[in-house]
Amino acid sequence: MERRAILILGASALLALLFGCERSRVQPGQTPLVRLAELEIDPAQLEQYKAALKEEIETSIRLEPGVLTLYAVSLKSNPAHIRILEMYADIPAYSAHLQTPHFLRYKNATQNMVKSLRLLETDPILLGSTSTRK
Amino acid sequence: MERRAILILGASALLALLFGCERSRVQPGQTPLVRLAELEIDPAQLEQYKAALKEEIETSIRLEPGVLTLYAVSLKSNPAHIRILEMYADIPAYSAHLQTPHFLRYKNATQNMVKSLRLLETDPILLGSTSTRK
Repeated sequence: MERRAILILGASALLALLFGCERSRVQPGQTPLVRLAELEIDPAQLEQYKAALKEEIETSIRLEPGVLTLYAVSLKSNPAHIRILEMYADIPAYSAHLQTPHFLRYKNATQNMVKSLRLLETDPILLGSTSTRK
Repeated sequence: MERRAILILGASALLALLFGCERSRVQPGQTPLVRLAELEIDPAQLEQYKAALKEEIETSIRLEPGVLTLYAVSLKSNPAHIRILEMYADIPAYSAHLQTPHFLRYKNATQNMVKSLRLLETDPILLGSTSTRK
């Protein structure tokens, strides 16, 4: 390999190392928007709902840098009860998310599957995760 | 710089890039243990409770590799209502967490501040986050 190529490779990798992990972190001083969605799904349509939700989450994480976390779980005591912890970098990121084709497709596809939806607005106390580990 | 040094630098940086972010990720094929805690705190002791909770979270994240996420938020509609999304690498990591001095100190310090505690066991549907972004 050429010396120049190796140098570029090394520099690129170092830069990627320095900045590549950063997107998984909430920036210092930045308070993300955190919401908790509580849903009850029609049990007869639960598998279709979960498939639509997975596709929506995968697409949002892949395409939207401002979507930090979409953790979706079902309750063991009642699998038709879903909780989603949603974290966005800021309000504009959340507003933009609501207008994306994949979110609108999810909302449209699942509107008759969702029996109830409760959106809890929250104030973060501490968002501790391995990505904030020092 | 020597060609060898540059090569080592590049290779090291690439390796670090490949593996350095990994601790913020759930390993492929690994399903973490995810619980959702719903607490109601005595409003008169809310600030003390939040201070104790923050200390517990900070210490757990710093000392316990198996504690992946402790996201604590309060509801805007009622700040004495707390939700904590807890994610552990596996059951042994969770069991070990319950025996740590910092967790036991938190439990002991807050036992008279907590009016109710509901622990929801969950099954992950999809845990999407920036750290799982491809």
